[in-house]
Amino acid sequence: MGIIVQKYGGTSVATPERVKNVAKRIVKTKNEGNRVVVVVSAPGDETDDLISLANQITDSPDEREMDVLLACGEQKSIALMTIAIKALGYDAISFTGPQVGIVTDDVHGKARIVKVGSEKIEKALNLDKIVIVAGFQGMDTDMDITTLGRGGSDLSAVAIASALNADVCELYKDVDGIMTANPKVCPDATLLPRITYEEMLELASAGAQVVNARSIEYAQNYNVPMRVRSSFNDNPGTLVVKEAKEMEKLFVTGITYNKDESKISVLGIKDTPGMAAIIFSAVALENVNIDMIVQDVSEDGITNISFTVPTGEVKKTVKALESVKDKVGIKKILTDDSITKVSAVGVGMKSHSGVAAMMFEALAEAGVNIDMITTSEIKISCVIAQKDCETAVRALHAKFNLGKK
Amino acid sequence: MGIIVQKYGGTSVATPERVKNVAKRIVKTKNEGNRVVVVVSAPGDETDDLISLANQITDSPDEREMDVLLACGEQKSIALMTIAIKALGYDAISFTGPQVGIVTDDVHGKARIVKVGSEKIEKALNLDKIVIVAGFQGMDTDMDITTLGRGGSDLSAVAIASALNADVCELYKDVDGIMTANPKVCPDATLLPRITYEEMLELASAGAQVVNARSIEYAQNYNVPMRVRSSFNDNPGTLVVKEAKEMEKLFVTGITYNKDESKISVLGIKDTPGMAAIIFSAVALENVNIDMIVQDVSEDGITNISFTVPTGEVKKTVKALESVKDKVGIKKILTDDSITKVSAVGVGMKSHSGVAAMMFEALAEAGVNIDMITTSEIKISCVIAQKDCETAVRALHAKFNLGKK
Repeated sequence: MGIIVQKYGGTSVATPERVKNVAKRIVKTKNEGNRVVVVVSAPGDETDDLISLANQITDSPDEREMDVLLACGEQKSIALMTIAIKALGYDAISFTGPQVGIVTDDVHGKARIVKVGSEKIEKALNLDKIVIVAGFQGMDTDMDITTLGRGGSDLSAVAIASALNADVCELYKDVDGIMTANPKVCPDATLLPRITYEEMLELASAGAQVVNARSIEYAQNYNVPMRVRSSFNDNPGTLVVKEAKEMEKLFVTGITYNKDESKISVLGIKDTPGMAAIIFSAVALENVNIDMIVQDVSEDGITNISFTVPTGEVKKTVKALESVKDKVGIKKILTDDSITKVSAVGVGMKSHSGVAAMMFEALAEAGVNIDMITTSEIKISCVIAQKDCETAVRALHAKFNLGKK
Repeated sequence: MGIIVQKYGGTSVATPERVKNVAKRIVKTKNEGNRVVVVVSAPGDETDDLISLANQITDSPDEREMDVLLACGEQKSIALMTIAIKALGYDAISFTGPQVGIVTDDVHGKARIVKVGSEKIEKALNLDKIVIVAGFQGMDTDMDITTLGRGGSDLSAVAIASALNADVCELYKDVDGIMTANPKVCPDATLLPRITYEEMLELASAGAQVVNARSIEYAQNYNVPMRVRSSFNDNPGTLVVKEAKEMEKLFVTGITYNKDESKISVLGIKDTPGMAAIIFSAVALENVNIDMIVQDVSEDGITNISFTVPTGEVKKTVKALESVKDKVGIKKILTDDSITKVSAVGVGMKSHSGVAAMMFEALAEAGVNIDMITTSEIKISCVIAQKDCETAVRALHAKFNLGKK
């Protein structure tokens, strides 16, 4: 009998009524002859509510205690879900992250999983129980409660699926699966029945928020088959797998965008070795996540560097830059939050030349000016003006022939 | 340096503002040169809210999962309290019941404490931290979360105080301490500076709801000095201790009452040996807690038995009685929920005769009819009509000279 790990997000367990609906779906999976392990998130706005309580006490709540506080959300969900399943007449048991042996490092608020115990879950499955596990949480080796950070419940599900050697890890979302583009922007966007881990990763880092990058990476590293599907219908969704022969025909799989980045330009830097290192070390000290970096061709021993960061981190970044201003000889720091990054992703790029050219052509035809460009093996990203975002996405979606036929 | 265990109830931690106030009080105790361990309950109505969520899913939620659910309440409190203390610049650390090693049996919803680990707390105290522990919860030997039932947080505090060999266990309440009578009924009621465990126990079982009987029993068994005081002022409250010489002068310490009992009369029972046993075995099977029992003098081989039970359990009790109706030859079952039990409690009774007589005299003078009587070594209880409750309590309070001088 195969093992299926299912993960349901906060929206799916926001009210007792929704918990009951999800319980029915879980029981259905069990009745189809599977051994079922379910990972749940905190109900609805619970996590935000808990954070707000702490912030009413202090601006900078202790990180260890925030994890103790936030872990309550998922604990509530596992209890309610198990109660709902048992009320349907099926045997079930809940476990918190610590109970099930999800061991992490001790970096509170964004802990990394070190080990996942499978013994308790396997014992319960052998007793024919449905197992409900709290997502997002674990414990360090001191038995202190830790949380995994944004997207943590997806990560819990993937890690548990890996530890159990599950047949599939199903991530239930409020969308049908992974689309060729945001259907709100491209009404003819289509659902991708399959996608590779690599493409999912690039899509995630390029702004598609469906599944968190860490979970995809974990699934890729441990080769966990992952399915992204809707909790509102029975459609099969998108299966995420290793690269497959048939997929190579498509050289672009999807178009995505991220409006939440800002461009920072550092002007008038002395063009001597080590300047970039000083600048980016200073920024790294502030824990800012830098995305694209472009350095101008230098003129008269002076150069400019532009890079993008999440808009929320502009302030910290500028502060860091100010601290090395004299050392590097920075003349001016410019920030621009009216940009957007659009990306085309596809494993097919590896074997198809000319994708970049097609992309630039499409944007030119649409009258969209390109500000910065970066490429990876399977992704091309362009920074453009935010006002052009929708135009650009639609143009690229059409150019690569991704819409409904 | 002495160890003080303080326990704060749900009202004291109901809002972030109150949490901050309690944090200040805790820090003050620490600054007075004490090592401080704090036990907290779930905030305000949290426990009721969680129960209501479960009841929206099913009428009879699974008991193991209810414990997982309810434990979230106290976990929320310990995190918020520790955050508040750390925000004041003092070092503190929170532990859940399972983390601190409060081991119980596996009777979910009303588990009994088997063992209390002191190692984690002592280690933290040695590092000069204030320790915040979740009340009401523990774990069984399978590491399943358990809860201790009504008044559980008081019990946690007493058990932790015992394990640490603390100097005192302070229970913070919304009253000033233990009074000679309910001040709402007797405006001249006075605060008792001292009371014995025994008297507290009898008062608790006679209806005074300030401290739960199990906690008092535990404190008595392990000789834990306990102080009941107000979280709204700095008054010393009531110290609960073993019997002391000076206390013997008072032969009645307090008057209390319980309106939440009903009388059940079973009429026309065959007066042969074993009938009472059959009746009360049947009632015991339904887990009904019987209080007073009175058997009439029999006439013509027929007798009547009356007893009191909590009003909420009348239905179950009658059902149990119906099941043995024919066997015992019961002619009629009468129930009456318009009664009240008034009690006078005092260790002095042991060495003073005539207390019962004074009590009956006082009630007679006040025109209050007595329906049933029971006595223990340090308590006399009378069942009277509920409408006479306040009159009776005032008459007894005056008769035993308990009011303000």
